Amino acid sequence: MSTIEEIARNMKESSAEMAASDVEKRNRALVMIGDSLREHAEEIFKMNDRDMEAAASNGVAEAVVKRLKFDGHKLDDVCAGLDMLRKLPDPLGRVTMNRDLDEGLNLQRITCPIGVIGVIFEARPDALVQIASLCVKSGNCAILKGGKETVNTNRILFRLIHDSVVKAGLPEGCLNQAESHAEIDELLKCDKYVDLLIPRGSNAFVRYIMDNTKIPVMGHADGICHIYVDEDCDQEMAIRVILDAKTQYTAACNAVETLLVHKNIAKEFLPKLAKALTDENVKMRGTTDVAGAVDGDTVELITENDFDTEYLALTVGVKTVEDLDEAIRHINIHGSHHTDSIITNDDEKAARFMQMVDSAGVYHNCSTRFSDGFRYGFGAEVGISTGKIHARGPVGLAGLTTYKYKLYGHGQIVGDYATGKKKFHHVEKQ
Amino acid sequence: MSTIEEIARNMKESSAEMAASDVEKRNRALVMIGDSLREHAEEIFKMNDRDMEAAASNGVAEAVVKRLKFDGHKLDDVCAGLDMLRKLPDPLGRVTMNRDLDEGLNLQRITCPIGVIGVIFEARPDALVQIASLCVKSGNCAILKGGKETVNTNRILFRLIHDSVVKAGLPEGCLNQAESHAEIDELLKCDKYVDLLIPRGSNAFVRYIMDNTKIPVMGHADGICHIYVDEDCDQEMAIRVILDAKTQYTAACNAVETLLVHKNIAKEFLPKLAKALTDENVKMRGTTDVAGAVDGDTVELITENDFDTEYLALTVGVKTVEDLDEAIRHINIHGSHHTDSIITNDDEKAARFMQMVDSAGVYHNCSTRFSDGFRYGFGAEVGISTGKIHARGPVGLAGLTTYKYKLYGHGQIVGDYATGKKKFHHVEKQ
Repeated sequence: MSTIEEIARNMKESSAEMAASDVEKRNRALVMIGDSLREHAEEIFKMNDRDMEAAASNGVAEAVVKRLKFDGHKLDDVCAGLDMLRKLPDPLGRVTMNRDLDEGLNLQRITCPIGVIGVIFEARPDALVQIASLCVKSGNCAILKGGKETVNTNRILFRLIHDSVVKAGLPEGCLNQAESHAEIDELLKCDKYVDLLIPRGSNAFVRYIMDNTKIPVMGHADGICHIYVDEDCDQEMAIRVILDAKTQYTAACNAVETLLVHKNIAKEFLPKLAKALTDENVKMRGTTDVAGAVDGDTVELITENDFDTEYLALTVGVKTVEDLDEAIRHINIHGSHHTDSIITNDDEKAARFMQMVDSAGVYHNCSTRFSDGFRYGFGAEVGISTGKIHARGPVGLAGLTTYKYKLYGHGQIVGDYATGKKKFHHVEKQ
Repeated sequence: MSTIEEIARNMKESSAEMAASDVEKRNRALVMIGDSLREHAEEIFKMNDRDMEAAASNGVAEAVVKRLKFDGHKLDDVCAGLDMLRKLPDPLGRVTMNRDLDEGLNLQRITCPIGVIGVIFEARPDALVQIASLCVKSGNCAILKGGKETVNTNRILFRLIHDSVVKAGLPEGCLNQAESHAEIDELLKCDKYVDLLIPRGSNAFVRYIMDNTKIPVMGHADGICHIYVDEDCDQEMAIRVILDAKTQYTAACNAVETLLVHKNIAKEFLPKLAKALTDENVKMRGTTDVAGAVDGDTVELITENDFDTEYLALTVGVKTVEDLDEAIRHINIHGSHHTDSIITNDDEKAARFMQMVDSAGVYHNCSTRFSDGFRYGFGAEVGISTGKIHARGPVGLAGLTTYKYKLYGHGQIVGDYATGKKKFHHVEKQ
């Protein structure tokens, strides 16, 4: 068996061929993957049952076990995603700049794949299909490492995907699967051959990847999202949005963790908020004035450290602020630059909030939970980036491409321009 | 005096204000910088003389001393650059996506500055002006650390730039200068506050930065550029382009280091090439067949290691190849993904070369030396990126921006879409 380094080196070599593959071939691969998954549905479910049983008998937490499940419903989702992805335009070969530097010296900037991508994810076998298909559509080669909890499901999914891709005419070496945990550390060292790492999993997991490799990493560790409730707002809307952002999927990275409430409406708004949250079993942690505004002992006192915590649970931090600017400052200091929302009727305040808050998603009058590749219409996402370099927010096909500059000449040399014999004219072309 | 960490933390706070500054203010700052530099020209030159004298008496190599010079000619260049930059459109606030996710739920992707940028450069005081002005135009805050060889020149340039920027109405804390070498290591640790590092200097210097920080680094270490001379080409053009690429500015990262020659023309082409190179004092290192094709002992034997070497001198490696594909493979393995050129009359071969070579610049029938922000018409460049993440090739204003997603709603919650009560329609808007 080959080492990860050998696999990565070979993949690097075949990445040129993958980059040159036409979109018909890549789309055909997506169709064949979907067909093959449906055709082998029973086999996949059987393998997934095996993983579920092993997880149950190993005492894996129920919340995690739920994420391991790959059933008919998940298969439908995955196939719908493949179909949507196939319909999206080719992200490669797009001319994003076309400029004559001089007569007969034409510069074009053309989109192309990044090359070799390492994807490391915990649990969620549907993520394997989603990410592999995004890499195929964007002409990237990928080394996939799934979680050990779904080793049987991942193995059959990978085999079906790989067979389909090769049958569609793409290079044999464009996809590879790593199975042992030791291979992660091997992969992290392959900075000569791997262009980008995409980890999907817990904060600690992503942080470990980021801290132990020289390869660029795209993703997010924390998701500490805020909702700021302005004094001039529709309070019922605020409560509806807050409940959705906190409870619709509590374990999501775009769930809200801290609420900032303008002090002028604290007395009126907080009791209503407390009732709504309590009805949904959400625990409040608040500053002393928050506790004072709410009856009884509903509110636990919040610590400074809580403001930097992603609860991922039915708990929410609540703080009153003097004004909009204090809210902005709080978010920029304590937030994770993921997604933050303002609830206000004042468009100017909304504009200021959306300008000054330094996050990938800045929202006005809606739930932070919208921050997602499917909801944005990207077909799928490889993850959500809280970094500001390369791609930000939900990352779909565009985030998996880069570009190169092609310069077409007729023997031009720089010397002629340096001596003034010739001059650049820089004319944009259509 | 503040520590670098304090400076970076404060800068992070004022970066929101800088991001919100209007382009008139930023352009005004560029005008005022130019005026101020001209007004204080004699002072600047005097400070530069002091640096030059110190360098000479410290036995700094002549090639380096030349780069330290800041005279009337450099001042003209710098002011022309400022003027060109001012005329470029605002890179901020551009709407690069505008999509209704549903009725009354509008998503926009808007360009914005990266935030806080650390720029570390050796020598070349004109780089300080160029990079500071690019940061100003793109709404970024910057910590600038110049080389100690030009400490006096840098100090006065920075003071004039900073005074102008503040007078133009931009925040006091948007630019800062670090002076002591120890501060570099301090800066490398500020991953909480600094969004991007841009090092400009020798390979070893850039490599050191990359290896010692968690902050994303944009730049290039090596520049190992190739020219492939196809069997079907204008050989005189090939020689003219090669001489330009090797000798026009030998110390540049886009100078050519290795020539690959199709074996079918070796006997005819190599003697002509050898004569042309010898006339320009360029030494050839070649494979045995290259040596065999050339009279006398003009060609030194090349080692495998030479193919991975950036000579930055009047030396060039020469190798014959079986065909186009061997040339492509050689470049992808030994190159530094900077800039590579093919000389051929065959457009199909050129297209294959430009598709398959995995470099930021892939050229047809012209010199590798064109790879440069000014020549591409970017106004200026902060450097050339050989990475594939974020920005590739010469990096101008666009490479100093990122984007954020703004979502405008009317109380929408994800729950309604998850339950099927509402549906996304994803309609692009103009």
